[in-house]
Amino acid sequence: MAIELSFLRQIAQVAAEQTLPRFRTISSIDNKYQVGFDPVTEADKEAERAIRALINRTYPDHGIMGEEFGSENLAASHVWVIDPIDGTRAFISGLPVWGTLAGLTIDGDAVAGVMAQPFTGELFMCDGVASYYEGPGGPRQLKTRQNPDIAQATLFTTTPALFKDKKREAYDRVERSVRMPRYGADCYGYAMIAAGFVDLVVETALHPYDIVALVPIIEKAGGVITNWDGGPAEKAGDIVAAGSKELHEQALELLNR
Amino acid sequence: MAIELSFLRQIAQVAAEQTLPRFRTISSIDNKYQVGFDPVTEADKEAERAIRALINRTYPDHGIMGEEFGSENLAASHVWVIDPIDGTRAFISGLPVWGTLAGLTIDGDAVAGVMAQPFTGELFMCDGVASYYEGPGGPRQLKTRQNPDIAQATLFTTTPALFKDKKREAYDRVERSVRMPRYGADCYGYAMIAAGFVDLVVETALHPYDIVALVPIIEKAGGVITNWDGGPAEKAGDIVAAGSKELHEQALELLNR
Repeated sequence: MAIELSFLRQIAQVAAEQTLPRFRTISSIDNKYQVGFDPVTEADKEAERAIRALINRTYPDHGIMGEEFGSENLAASHVWVIDPIDGTRAFISGLPVWGTLAGLTIDGDAVAGVMAQPFTGELFMCDGVASYYEGPGGPRQLKTRQNPDIAQATLFTTTPALFKDKKREAYDRVERSVRMPRYGADCYGYAMIAAGFVDLVVETALHPYDIVALVPIIEKAGGVITNWDGGPAEKAGDIVAAGSKELHEQALELLNR
Repeated sequence: MAIELSFLRQIAQVAAEQTLPRFRTISSIDNKYQVGFDPVTEADKEAERAIRALINRTYPDHGIMGEEFGSENLAASHVWVIDPIDGTRAFISGLPVWGTLAGLTIDGDAVAGVMAQPFTGELFMCDGVASYYEGPGGPRQLKTRQNPDIAQATLFTTTPALFKDKKREAYDRVERSVRMPRYGADCYGYAMIAAGFVDLVVETALHPYDIVALVPIIEKAGGVITNWDGGPAEKAGDIVAAGSKELHEQALELLNR
């Protein structure tokens, strides 16, 4: 069964109705710690509720795995994996580099997905083809940059502090090999791989809802995304995403040296 | 002499005409290294040329200090300090958290300024009053969050790797004291202090063109911005910006312990 781009757009729309009005609403430190007022958690929960309701209504046989409300019907062949706000720290800080993620797996393989940034209005989507909408310059197909050389690469990670012990050493080997490391972009870093402006993302301890939506977008844009063993990214954990096969191989080798 | 908001808007406009069409135009690694094609440098230079021409035309007696083309007429009482693209690494990576900066000093004091992010269309400006335009929700006055407690603070810096030796120790004391450190926002981090969503920015080795435009925006929004000695931020170097006087004092104490 094909997933229409229009359904991925609907997911983005119902989520944005909940997230965007709550973005940048922490107007004072007092409000922030006022009991019962937590705009991030509220936005997260209400957006996930809205996405779940849309999926249940449209595809009642599909399963759902979400960050806020757990799993339902995981025995289904078709399972949606959703994170209403990926990048809550960016959200809290007012930076427009968080996103709403929803990905569809069929028998465990990620086949379709959307990353939506409602403040900029950008949509990074895959329904078999990876595409970008609502940016200046009009719709276009997403294509990774086929950079073959890690010494010329731009690398993103949330923060090196998340890697512990041997994993920190592994990450540091990659960071020392690239031209430009950058921190803090969450899902936006993966979107920029798909769009051809970033070469590598290396992260650790991810949940499936952090990554499943991004897998088909990166793969269909020409990139490679796996865990650090080279296994399926859908299982999450430690992830390496690259714009080219050569870069992915170089990063894997450095991570496992 | 008062500076009109409309003039700050004109600066943002002539710069955007040069920067925005060159943002996200590195579509392949081949193009990126093709001789004579460097969209960031081109955007930087063309935007600075456009801003200088506008200032020279409108205020022929004013001096100008810019990142790309140096200084002219610095003996003037009124001097503009401009950085056409602050956050070139974000620009290169496709992230909409870079900005065009232009600030006006009178006898060395920053009195007016603009930070413009043309991809989102946002304008953070100060002409005596600090204000925000073209975001969702309409124009509003900028107000920092008066967080008095560093243990509850959100801190931004470009990357800790920029601080060396004693300065790294000083920075680390601040980072260990806050609730949430984040990296990589450049001028956008300062804008988010003014808007009330970030509490602290600590940076090192800044040039005047990295900071002068932001000084009046933060100060008139209710924040405090100085160098690490507590001296005028207009001189640049090592900078600490805070949303509240209490936080600024706590950060200064930690930096100079």
